[in-house]
Amino acid sequence: MRQELQELSAELKNAAPFYSPRYIGHMNSDLLLPGVIAEFMTMMYNPNNVAAEAGPATVPRELEVGWQLARMFGYNTDPEKGTTAWGHLTSGGTIANYEGIWNFREVKFYPIALAEAAGVMGIDFEAVGPEQRKLSEYSKWALVNFSIADTVDLLASVKRQISASGMKPKEVKQFKGIIDRETLVGLGAADFFGKHREIKPPKVIVPITAHYSWDKSLKVLGLGLNNLVLVKTDKKMCLRIDHFEELIDTFENEQIPVLGAVGVLGSTEFSTIDPIDEMLEIREDAYDRGFYFGLHIDAAWGGYMCSLFRREETNQFCEREEVHEDLSYFPSQEIYDAFKAVADSDSITVDPHKLGYLPYPCGAFVARNMGVIDFISQKASYLYDIKDDRSHKSQVEKLINLGQFILEGSKPGAAAAAAYVTHRVVPLNKHHFGRLVKVTIKQCEYFYKKITTLANELDKKVLIKIPFFPETNIICFAVNVKGNDKLALMNFFGRRVFERLKINRFEPLQMKEFVGSYTSLVHGKIDDELAHEVLCDLEIDTQTFVSDVTDSQSQADHIFLFRHSLMSPWLLHRWENKNYIDRYIDYLKELIEAELLKLSKAKPMQQKKKGTSPAESE
Amino acid sequence: MRQELQELSAELKNAAPFYSPRYIGHMNSDLLLPGVIAEFMTMMYNPNNVAAEAGPATVPRELEVGWQLARMFGYNTDPEKGTTAWGHLTSGGTIANYEGIWNFREVKFYPIALAEAAGVMGIDFEAVGPEQRKLSEYSKWALVNFSIADTVDLLASVKRQISASGMKPKEVKQFKGIIDRETLVGLGAADFFGKHREIKPPKVIVPITAHYSWDKSLKVLGLGLNNLVLVKTDKKMCLRIDHFEELIDTFENEQIPVLGAVGVLGSTEFSTIDPIDEMLEIREDAYDRGFYFGLHIDAAWGGYMCSLFRREETNQFCEREEVHEDLSYFPSQEIYDAFKAVADSDSITVDPHKLGYLPYPCGAFVARNMGVIDFISQKASYLYDIKDDRSHKSQVEKLINLGQFILEGSKPGAAAAAAYVTHRVVPLNKHHFGRLVKVTIKQCEYFYKKITTLANELDKKVLIKIPFFPETNIICFAVNVKGNDKLALMNFFGRRVFERLKINRFEPLQMKEFVGSYTSLVHGKIDDELAHEVLCDLEIDTQTFVSDVTDSQSQADHIFLFRHSLMSPWLLHRWENKNYIDRYIDYLKELIEAELLKLSKAKPMQQKKKGTSPAESE
Repeated sequence: MRQELQELSAELKNAAPFYSPRYIGHMNSDLLLPGVIAEFMTMMYNPNNVAAEAGPATVPRELEVGWQLARMFGYNTDPEKGTTAWGHLTSGGTIANYEGIWNFREVKFYPIALAEAAGVMGIDFEAVGPEQRKLSEYSKWALVNFSIADTVDLLASVKRQISASGMKPKEVKQFKGIIDRETLVGLGAADFFGKHREIKPPKVIVPITAHYSWDKSLKVLGLGLNNLVLVKTDKKMCLRIDHFEELIDTFENEQIPVLGAVGVLGSTEFSTIDPIDEMLEIREDAYDRGFYFGLHIDAAWGGYMCSLFRREETNQFCEREEVHEDLSYFPSQEIYDAFKAVADSDSITVDPHKLGYLPYPCGAFVARNMGVIDFISQKASYLYDIKDDRSHKSQVEKLINLGQFILEGSKPGAAAAAAYVTHRVVPLNKHHFGRLVKVTIKQCEYFYKKITTLANELDKKVLIKIPFFPETNIICFAVNVKGNDKLALMNFFGRRVFERLKINRFEPLQMKEFVGSYTSLVHGKIDDELAHEVLCDLEIDTQTFVSDVTDSQSQADHIFLFRHSLMSPWLLHRWENKNYIDRYIDYLKELIEAELLKLSKAKPMQQKKKGTSPAESE
Repeated sequence: MRQELQELSAELKNAAPFYSPRYIGHMNSDLLLPGVIAEFMTMMYNPNNVAAEAGPATVPRELEVGWQLARMFGYNTDPEKGTTAWGHLTSGGTIANYEGIWNFREVKFYPIALAEAAGVMGIDFEAVGPEQRKLSEYSKWALVNFSIADTVDLLASVKRQISASGMKPKEVKQFKGIIDRETLVGLGAADFFGKHREIKPPKVIVPITAHYSWDKSLKVLGLGLNNLVLVKTDKKMCLRIDHFEELIDTFENEQIPVLGAVGVLGSTEFSTIDPIDEMLEIREDAYDRGFYFGLHIDAAWGGYMCSLFRREETNQFCEREEVHEDLSYFPSQEIYDAFKAVADSDSITVDPHKLGYLPYPCGAFVARNMGVIDFISQKASYLYDIKDDRSHKSQVEKLINLGQFILEGSKPGAAAAAAYVTHRVVPLNKHHFGRLVKVTIKQCEYFYKKITTLANELDKKVLIKIPFFPETNIICFAVNVKGNDKLALMNFFGRRVFERLKINRFEPLQMKEFVGSYTSLVHGKIDDELAHEVLCDLEIDTQTFVSDVTDSQSQADHIFLFRHSLMSPWLLHRWENKNYIDRYIDYLKELIEAELLKLSKAKPMQQKKKGTSPAESE
């Protein structure tokens, strides 16, 4: 054991140094102490949050974490005030994203199954749905355009009407059996859409910047990747609302159901914020016309930024000025509006193991309407259960066997304890957790200023260009050698410089001054105007940016970018009288100049060995 | 922070005491020290195993864990010797089960997509598939009955033929694009089966004893719960092979594809072992007739028992006698044959966080044919990549960006380090890990002997009946009061006795002598003969075992069982000169006698308050 642990310990010394302020790469940083201690403390007991029996201390804490997050997003959690939210932890954002789609799917196609079963039983229900008409009077198209709230209410109403009708238990059971068989989860997608030919398989709409787990989700859930519709992004790498609206109009006109649309709050690569408010407006307008889709927010990265917008006592959404205090530009009006609108979304993915500064694994899924659990529960008791006890205690009791309502089964109570204690010690408002978030944004503003200065300083030798304004806490930039107009060579130069910022499993970590990360703007996946501007600013021949590379010496299908997540809260702390961002900028300058020197000494770049084309070296 | 941690610490004292030999409830126990230390050590660095860049020390260890497990199951891991296995960790068995179905689905329907794309391109491929004919010569029905190996080989052959044909890169790209669109994951289940009407949506076959995550998997993946087919179990609660064969024959005759069948190696409730060997024989025969389905083993619980069957140096499968050494009855010939056959299955779910004695979260998925990754990868490069480098190093390199091949994304490197170090320190063979497994079985044998003795001792007052022989390390029994013939009352009595063995969130843990768990044999879900025998032995009127309870004073739809997982390795250790099993048996006797006394003093059981019918009190 000693030998194996020593070996592990030695190799971990060479792990990505997330704990260091010299790590400005991916979305990782040193962790919050309350969470780490709570995690270790709890792991000694190893509770399992699949059910209260295996995690009596930690399941209620996990549910509370869900409500803590829900309040940060502005969802209601007070049963006295109407529809309450609920949330729980997942192994990560990917599973939370699956849950978003899974929840939408089970709710959206439920009214059709219910109507089908009512038809078989020869019964009907009065005053249900958005138009408060008989269930049988809705067309199938109308039924798949019930909102989540409509369907939750529909079920409540059906329960009441069944209870009032004096239907015999045996008949109720039979009715329930037919519904179960007729749902999409019962029939499966093939038979469901085979049976209801007038209803086409649904689309899911995400921006191009969405994480690849959205691809996975459509594949895994059997909805089909072809049904994932990508919305173009604008010059700021945010979802283009005109294109979004156009897509919605098209699907509405063609009567193709839209299961859900996804807005990204802090994209994985760039931390850009989609116009959630405008997406919601379009959604509301569409619903008024009888065309509904769910709106999920992928806030895996940006979710915790919401803490910066919440007042301490009242949990009210702050004025823009309050948030802006101590900052240079954050938040722009657009971003402020987007954050404000989060409260009106239907569900949210957020990763406490990202900007929540907690250890892996700790993702979370939060839904605005707790009523959705009746449609996803593994032990559906919904037609019997006509109680409507709205106390907090009854909510905990309802959810206590957590495994019934989630995609996973056994799960670590330790993660729940870590998140719970952290949120208690560092509450999710602007005076506590928000300060941590603010530091990251402040660092980004500082970095932006400094890299701009460096760009000016070196402008005779290289062009350093920030392709879009870093609105939150991740910054990207491209570097080109003055005089070069070929994208392939620019990318090659960037990669050469980046080489020293990259973790290499075969080289000691101690050799690194800083660790960064990189990303790309890919041809066909970014706004044309943006591409044009970026390339022109970099003095690159726009003709060398192509979708299919035929000449790897000059062309490329992507623009290489340096990328820095400024998540470590220590970057503006000084070490030997100089903060880490200043140190990095100086180091970057050194690297660039060293590479320029090599370049001037070496044979011209153009003649580099064949077969090492930039695109392949990644 | 101090306050929150103190509160957590205090409440954790009341968590389920998995660490104690007085805990004989669910599948939990004290953990293995190497794993716990490795987990804590690694968590300080918080690596993310989504890709090597974020987990340089731990991603290779996770892959190695996959191979360690694969070797324990008898899968080949030596690239020199042909098809190699691969495996990785998941957040738990539920996700691993989803992966089993997901892998099967993507492979099974690939040949149809390929044939479709070849048709569009006007090309064909020679000597492919089980009959080594032209691709175009196979019917769709034949294409969905290619084995996994057939389809992996098909892809390799297509790559070679494309490479030899001198097809232009642009055409290759086009071809690949068409395949991607035509796959089930591309089209989605609805459009795929809508297009290929002659192919019906597939079935998945599991025994009744299968975990409820199999229900979830069919729902989540959009395959439809109605397509989950349950195989009856026999008197030993194992899959009934005659019923299985009958189902296979039916689906073959009706030309309904079967995606996969699942054999359970250690059922969640009873730790029963399905006849994997006979299932595989039926599978092989069916394949010879042109009807194929994958065979997945859900060994979430029983997987680590395989370590008891492996020799140290050679990793050979042991003779039955070697395994039997020091034991009373394990393994029966049936069980031995089932374990031996595991090596011929296609994929396996195993939970290191169960019988692997590791902290949550640590599930695993292991597949026999690493070729499957080409069908599930998020960045399919398969038509370009014609390299066939079979070294171990190249395999690690191929899998290093793990997130591309799994359902999850970000994931804890700490879990991988824990499993890796544990498997290194306590290797997965009969001389090391196997000894631990053997202790659990030995304890069960001892428990069986002792409970039988108790049953004889008390046979004037109560009937204690073991409904089926405990073949591995979980034991269940029922208790009835002598003279009672009503199932409802028997269940009520059992629950009353069990009350003291149950964790109650509102009562201090220190009040418990022992903690157990319970389960039920549910009407309609068990073998008729078994039900009849059990009830007769318990002197219960078989008429009171019903599917729909109309008289809750006498009838019940289930038989209440005490259930004990004998996983803690300390149960035969003595404390104050008496081991824990003896202590428990004595305690159980006390509980039973105390309850009998209460019964004799109280008004007759029959007159208990209305509304507290046994079935509702659970």
